[in-house]
Amino acid sequence: MPFIDLNSDVGESFGNWSMGDDAAIFRSVSSANVACGFHAGDPSTIARTCRDAVAAGVVIGAHVGYRDLAGFGRRFLGCSPTELADDVLYQIGALEALARAAGGQVRYVKPHGALYNAIVHHQAHAQAVVDAVKAFGADLPLLLLPGSVALARAEAAGLRGVAEAFADRAYNPDGTLVSRREAGAVLHDAAEVTANMVRLATEGTIIARDGSRIETSAESICLHGDTPGAVAMAASVRAGLEAAGVGIRSFV
Amino acid sequence: MPFIDLNSDVGESFGNWSMGDDAAIFRSVSSANVACGFHAGDPSTIARTCRDAVAAGVVIGAHVGYRDLAGFGRRFLGCSPTELADDVLYQIGALEALARAAGGQVRYVKPHGALYNAIVHHQAHAQAVVDAVKAFGADLPLLLLPGSVALARAEAAGLRGVAEAFADRAYNPDGTLVSRREAGAVLHDAAEVTANMVRLATEGTIIARDGSRIETSAESICLHGDTPGAVAMAASVRAGLEAAGVGIRSFV
Amino acid sequence: MPFIDLNSDVGESFGNWSMGDDAAIFRSVSSANVACGFHAGDPSTIARTCRDAVAAGVVIGAHVGYRDLAGFGRRFLGCSPTELADDVLYQIGALEALARAAGGQVRYVKPHGALYNAIVHHQAHAQAVVDAVKAFGADLPLLLLPGSVALARAEAAGLRGVAEAFADRAYNPDGTLVSRREAGAVLHDAAEVTANMVRLATEGTIIARDGSRIETSAESICLHGDTPGAVAMAASVRAGLEAAGVGIRSFV
Amino acid sequence: MPFIDLNSDVGESFGNWSMGDDAAIFRSVSSANVACGFHAGDPSTIARTCRDAVAAGVVIGAHVGYRDLAGFGRRFLGCSPTELADDVLYQIGALEALARAAGGQVRYVKPHGALYNAIVHHQAHAQAVVDAVKAFGADLPLLLLPGSVALARAEAAGLRGVAEAFADRAYNPDGTLVSRREAGAVLHDAAEVTANMVRLATEGTIIARDGSRIETSAESICLHGDTPGAVAMAASVRAGLEAAGVGIRSFV
Repeated sequence: MPFIDLNSDVGESFGNWSMGDDAAIFRSVSSANVACGFHAGDPSTIARTCRDAVAAGVVIGAHVGYRDLAGFGRRFLGCSPTELADDVLYQIGALEALARAAGGQVRYVKPHGALYNAIVHHQAHAQAVVDAVKAFGADLPLLLLPGSVALARAEAAGLRGVAEAFADRAYNPDGTLVSRREAGAVLHDAAEVTANMVRLATEGTIIARDGSRIETSAESICLHGDTPGAVAMAASVRAGLEAAGVGIRSFV
Repeated sequence: MPFIDLNSDVGESFGNWSMGDDAAIFRSVSSANVACGFHAGDPSTIARTCRDAVAAGVVIGAHVGYRDLAGFGRRFLGCSPTELADDVLYQIGALEALARAAGGQVRYVKPHGALYNAIVHHQAHAQAVVDAVKAFGADLPLLLLPGSVALARAEAAGLRGVAEAFADRAYNPDGTLVSRREAGAVLHDAAEVTANMVRLATEGTIIARDGSRIETSAESICLHGDTPGAVAMAASVRAGLEAAGVGIRSFV
Repeated sequence: MPFIDLNSDVGESFGNWSMGDDAAIFRSVSSANVACGFHAGDPSTIARTCRDAVAAGVVIGAHVGYRDLAGFGRRFLGCSPTELADDVLYQIGALEALARAAGGQVRYVKPHGALYNAIVHHQAHAQAVVDAVKAFGADLPLLLLPGSVALARAEAAGLRGVAEAFADRAYNPDGTLVSRREAGAVLHDAAEVTANMVRLATEGTIIARDGSRIETSAESICLHGDTPGAVAMAASVRAGLEAAGVGIRSFV
Repeated sequence: MPFIDLNSDVGESFGNWSMGDDAAIFRSVSSANVACGFHAGDPSTIARTCRDAVAAGVVIGAHVGYRDLAGFGRRFLGCSPTELADDVLYQIGALEALARAAGGQVRYVKPHGALYNAIVHHQAHAQAVVDAVKAFGADLPLLLLPGSVALARAEAAGLRGVAEAFADRAYNPDGTLVSRREAGAVLHDAAEVTANMVRLATEGTIIARDGSRIETSAESICLHGDTPGAVAMAASVRAGLEAAGVGIRSFV
């Protein structure tokens, strides 16, 4: 029986501001990327999210980002590698305390937003993230883009790099994502997306937008939960995978 | 041979702003109250401070505060008990990760500034701090003002409350501190302060400003390191205690 | 023809987090309390809100608060009067620049959340807000709770204090608001609320929850826009007032 | 009689953290680049700095930066042009209110740190800064690096671009600054620096580190005040210029 992990971002509310329908997304995923306070997520939001994750049987990951609340961590920040490593370690530790109080623990790390994108290519920032995860001491796996510098650095450091695919994004024939600046970059048809993800889980391939097949090593699928449409699509993907006999479970 | 702990606040720089002479203070104290990022202390400052504490053989404590960088945690913040407990737990966890990466660990918790003062009387905030320490799971001792609500709450929760004395502050005959608004509240004579602290360590008494003797259960003495004068006084107190045959060691 | 002002809080989004339906509320009110960045409102949100207010012909006021983004300005902050006055002046100036760029200007000041509530009684914080408005130099009116210390301080300083009523709140016979902790504090029946506000605008009275009549000097009515129900109620109040021949216009 | 402006960064304390000797630097300069709260400078620090500038007869400029308190504005931030323009306008407005309350006003704008460096080349950020200054409405001059994109954009927008030289930095023969990564980039000999600046003010030339002469249009000299040595060098430059018959006055 084939298996795949489904992950999504949660805990991205902040103080009086709500974001996403975490309760709904917890019904669809096996892994929760929990915001750690630097791009989103105040401590009480994080605490509640961890309790909900534990109650739902969903694995907790640290969704670490640049220190940029005003930009939701979606803006590159030219910090030094030392600053970045310390910022990431601080975030993992803060989440770990709240996760443990909820009966869980941090089981993996996924960089967020601009940091995720930067370390596809940025050597020093990629290494800093890896250094922070090593320094945390639990040899947590890192959830990353296939082919990214960060994935290579993680594996060079003896950490497990877990590649992920994006359910609602179109792919170029070379396996890279179609830029959001191009038309058709984001897929909106739940049936098409679900069929793609079933193929990924059962055959290990993604169909690029020119129709060609891409071999992929993705062990996880990233779903979104920030809009009602995204939540519905997440549910559709999970239902489609289960109907196709694919087990949904964490990669850890 | 009598023993006493000496504690001081460290790691209170933030980004480009420096505060205190931590290197000097590490030569005088046995316990370091390390800022956790909410009132002071960016992650790189905290990381460096933890490494220095470990190198100096000084025990690391979490100096947790209200979320108030602009006010250095010296302003009361009317947060809910849940918010406060989660904020405190977040801070302890963040420090723990950085301390462990430095080869140390968080061994106690000391509330900072306005939070320290509030929980002398504020029942809900005192309980929130205690709840956070319990939730962290290591049953860390809490360093607090003798007679404070927080100390009673800590002990009621099965935590160890450690009472501390203030080296450079005058005491009222009832054992409370002379308010900083009154003349003579802060002591500047290193010889007098040192003699007082030797008496505390060897006889368990403090001389109030009217000359009366106060019995005290203080197991730690709080020293300051934020001015050159304070650093010199800290060194004087340590030297005086050692000359009087008092051992300097952590209460943990 | 009687007149009344309708005011509501707007511009309370922050970065990636949205709050309220400002576009809808601009169709109902004559005065917009625009967040200034300390409790909510990043600069781009503020800029957009000012442009929308100008386009809608709605007067812009500075909704100034404590520096507390994580608490949405709803938590008392024990800052010094000097800090508070400077914080308020900073906020007014920042908004003024963005309002002017949008073709408007700041025409009044309304304290937000915990600051609004504190200066009903807190002498030093009330005076600090008044001092800041005086220091701004335009002798802006202050929108405040009737009977508050701040209103008295504003008038003593030669500023105009404008009293407001709350459409969806029950009143005690002495003119104070029923505490939110009591049942029935918040009114949900749009027809009842509308009738109350028509009476206020035409007769200058509010019916307390025991049925007694309260004379009021309120020149403005505060409406909410943070939920779909609140937006609908705001529209109902405006329609009811207009149907009763009451003109809706700013107090400035 | 030749004239030149001397400018320096001030108001860079934040809350409990002090930076620089502003009182000393006010005795040396004619223009004060006042931090506006995004990289440094809380409102009370800004207010006090404005009062001191007015008392010293020093012109106030807005030292605007990226929103990055933890990095002191020295880290590039990949914000959108709209976000940057609104952030800059917000900062200018906030400072203007505090400057006016002190009897002064904002007379020019100087970007700080990473923003200053970015807009030497970064077209979109350069234009955003220029757009913000235009939007402020007072057609304030911009103090910038000679040859920078920002200077060209300012002039294209009808604003005055004022070029500045750096007293304590070595120059390449092409007029660019020697990188701080190279040895000899920073000059420490007050006599040499002073002689260079007298030559600049009287002949309009800078001697590059290979001895060649560079023609310059600099109308202002940037001095530092963040260390005792820098403060002494600032005083030396001023004294040397006055001894050489050069008048010290603002460019506005």
